[in-house]
Amino acid sequence: MGKEFVKDITAMDVDFAQWYTDVVTKADLIDYSSVRGSMIIRPYGYALWENIKNELDSRIKETGHENVYMPLFIPESLLQKEKDHIEGFAPEVAWVTHGGDEKLAERLCVRPTSEVLFCEHYKNIIHSYRDLPKLYNQWANVVRWEKTTRPFLRTLEFLWQEGHTCHATDEEAHEETVKMLNVYADLCENVLAIPVVKGQKTDKEKFAGAKYTYTIESLMHDGKALQSGTSHHLGDGFAKAFGIQFTDKDGSLQHVQQTSWGFTTRIIGAMIMVHGDDRGLVIPPNVAPVQLMIVPIAQHKEGVLDYAYGLKETLARVARVDIDASDKKPGWKFNEHEMKGIPLRLEVGPKDIEKQQVVLARRDTGEKMIVSADQLEAKITETLADIQRNLFEKARELREEKTFTALNFDELKEIFKIKTGFVKAMWCGDRDCEEQIKEETGATSRCMPFHQETISTECVCCGKDAKKLVYWAKAY
Amino acid sequence: MGKEFVKDITAMDVDFAQWYTDVVTKADLIDYSSVRGSMIIRPYGYALWENIKNELDSRIKETGHENVYMPLFIPESLLQKEKDHIEGFAPEVAWVTHGGDEKLAERLCVRPTSEVLFCEHYKNIIHSYRDLPKLYNQWANVVRWEKTTRPFLRTLEFLWQEGHTCHATDEEAHEETVKMLNVYADLCENVLAIPVVKGQKTDKEKFAGAKYTYTIESLMHDGKALQSGTSHHLGDGFAKAFGIQFTDKDGSLQHVQQTSWGFTTRIIGAMIMVHGDDRGLVIPPNVAPVQLMIVPIAQHKEGVLDYAYGLKETLARVARVDIDASDKKPGWKFNEHEMKGIPLRLEVGPKDIEKQQVVLARRDTGEKMIVSADQLEAKITETLADIQRNLFEKARELREEKTFTALNFDELKEIFKIKTGFVKAMWCGDRDCEEQIKEETGATSRCMPFHQETISTECVCCGKDAKKLVYWAKAY
Repeated sequence: MGKEFVKDITAMDVDFAQWYTDVVTKADLIDYSSVRGSMIIRPYGYALWENIKNELDSRIKETGHENVYMPLFIPESLLQKEKDHIEGFAPEVAWVTHGGDEKLAERLCVRPTSEVLFCEHYKNIIHSYRDLPKLYNQWANVVRWEKTTRPFLRTLEFLWQEGHTCHATDEEAHEETVKMLNVYADLCENVLAIPVVKGQKTDKEKFAGAKYTYTIESLMHDGKALQSGTSHHLGDGFAKAFGIQFTDKDGSLQHVQQTSWGFTTRIIGAMIMVHGDDRGLVIPPNVAPVQLMIVPIAQHKEGVLDYAYGLKETLARVARVDIDASDKKPGWKFNEHEMKGIPLRLEVGPKDIEKQQVVLARRDTGEKMIVSADQLEAKITETLADIQRNLFEKARELREEKTFTALNFDELKEIFKIKTGFVKAMWCGDRDCEEQIKEETGATSRCMPFHQETISTECVCCGKDAKKLVYWAKAY
Repeated sequence: MGKEFVKDITAMDVDFAQWYTDVVTKADLIDYSSVRGSMIIRPYGYALWENIKNELDSRIKETGHENVYMPLFIPESLLQKEKDHIEGFAPEVAWVTHGGDEKLAERLCVRPTSEVLFCEHYKNIIHSYRDLPKLYNQWANVVRWEKTTRPFLRTLEFLWQEGHTCHATDEEAHEETVKMLNVYADLCENVLAIPVVKGQKTDKEKFAGAKYTYTIESLMHDGKALQSGTSHHLGDGFAKAFGIQFTDKDGSLQHVQQTSWGFTTRIIGAMIMVHGDDRGLVIPPNVAPVQLMIVPIAQHKEGVLDYAYGLKETLARVARVDIDASDKKPGWKFNEHEMKGIPLRLEVGPKDIEKQQVVLARRDTGEKMIVSADQLEAKITETLADIQRNLFEKARELREEKTFTALNFDELKEIFKIKTGFVKAMWCGDRDCEEQIKEETGATSRCMPFHQETISTECVCCGKDAKKLVYWAKAY
């Protein structure tokens, strides 16, 4: 049952939020459970996460980092050691108060992030400049007590990696912060085909306890922005709160300079909202659990299934390939695999076998190609690369179409009234202006892009001297 | 500092528990934190876990299972659905009672295991015999509120995989239970070089909610047993409690038959206690993060470091290789790498370079070999395989030395008074006898081995008709 029915999804233009919910559930990425705000990541969704994780983990290791694992629980007193940090996180942590029947002497929070645990450990193991840098990362689940949740985008619990590093100098910590932001940007652009804007968060939007936060921001199909990865220079604030000191080459005692950076399952939400369409998911080949799905036509006829399974074996050399030999009708299968965003479909029936050819169908453009058997491997490799390129280009074009500029407050308000997208506008650096913009437009400052332009000399809000170009947007 | 001091470890025979603690901390596997009963898994320990995890994950996937991810929290009412299950786990769960400042309407437990979450999901997605089997696995952290904890062996939080499957028939569920126990046994014996006894748990020792539990049991250097992996046939108890039903081929409505099986970070404790010695860890090559450590001798002399780094690059083809080019003395380095259990050390100095040879030193036997450069790759491959074999053989011999038989209760008590190890003895199947044995000897039934022998016809405790041969031991 179930699977054989047409899975209707709401059209994007009708209700984007409902479209998203339809896609994540009907493409079998997630299921809900009786645990409020949490999601079950189903095999197809988790395979996607494993691919993303493997790509990122190898980049993290190649840049010299080591994986560790810290405890899930943080004693309340430890979380309170760094003032800004606890202020930022206290409202959204889950508290464990009982173990078995016993009431705990001190409450434990379920980690919302692990800075304080890393700091406590670093204090134990760092003594000399020879112990630096320490470049650690962990893959873990974290919990943030969100009121309103949506699968992948904002969930009570999510999966992520969190990097935590210690350096001898401010300059080295700065370099690390930039390096890891670039790793995230590379992953987004070259694996997930999601173009990003790199920049710095304003003080209002930076991480609780950070000196500054770098971010990559991407734009969804509906014109809303999504923070896709952040990298923080923590300065020596945590080091001072936790007493993480080292003896420098000259014998002096110094506090370490720290960074942290994180990338989460949220990116799957971005991938869906950047590439998806009214037929469902569209997954970039570089991260697709299945890159090529073989659908035998008239599979009851002699030789068809054998031939199709033979192709599966051969083509495994050039792609992650699967075969759908279920007893559903081909049309149902096409819908199903399109819904799941599989980049390429291969159709092969008795006539194709006779003619030594197959049909390839692209998920991104819908194009169908007749390919002769002797050119098949090359054509698949070439087409997967072309789909990857095309998805990135389409996303970049969409972002450009939806990127506007505003020179004064009236323009800014007018744009956010009738459009959604990035708005580039100058800012004086004053938090009051940032808050007023949010209040009157619903948009927040996404970042001060590294690539600065001077589109005006006046703050878009107050008209005073502008200091920075800022990307503003309504955001997830 | 720190690292340059000799790291003394307590001798095994003096105090085995202290030896264990010394090894796990001084070999940099773990660190303690202010979170009671939890451990920080440091880079070397985590690299070990990653290797174990990769080996197991590929076996789990090869046997047709898919990875998923379930929520961390379980609402109290959901945990209570299966009566035996909640009785078994309630005393050892951590309870979340507050989110931010808000008191929760219903307490959430931090998962001690995820049967009930899988069951709730399976009820949603299983309708027909076509949906079966469902073969799911998850890699996750779980929490059990233990009073007394020891790194890896018993910790408040640990990492594991938990498989959860649904089948149409009791027979298929049985086959799955056996298959996954065999996967665990294969991993233990062929990767971790730990010989295991396969068998069934008594009803007293089985999993809370299971029909029966299969287990692999291993024997530590001190003669205590360690349960190293379990695989449970859950029958239809959970299915009935959760209403997981499917329409069978004949149109009838049936409850699914379920299994679950788990393997944890605890196995690292077993690896340490099976292979370690008074100089520290001994890691089997198949799982060692570093299989070969190159130590340059007189590395300040011209050409030595270049030569050593050249070797590192070449030898990466045949082993996981690293180089210690720090400014510590070679003797310190030897101690350090022996402490860390690195299977092979390669020493190379100016004279070796002149003679086109190197020295290889085995961690397991201490043997040193002069190897000519042109035979080096073959010799390394061959020696690593030999170390792997040797460790398994040594562990098997130790287990045989420490496996005893008892024909009556006096013998049993006498053995456990003066020795530690496995004791094979017959049992009538009565829980009272099992409890009396535990009370008077401190030993528990480890398993009823699949390979049964009849060493007597009478129960070792009560003298009545014996039903099963049981392995008894004091256990971790």
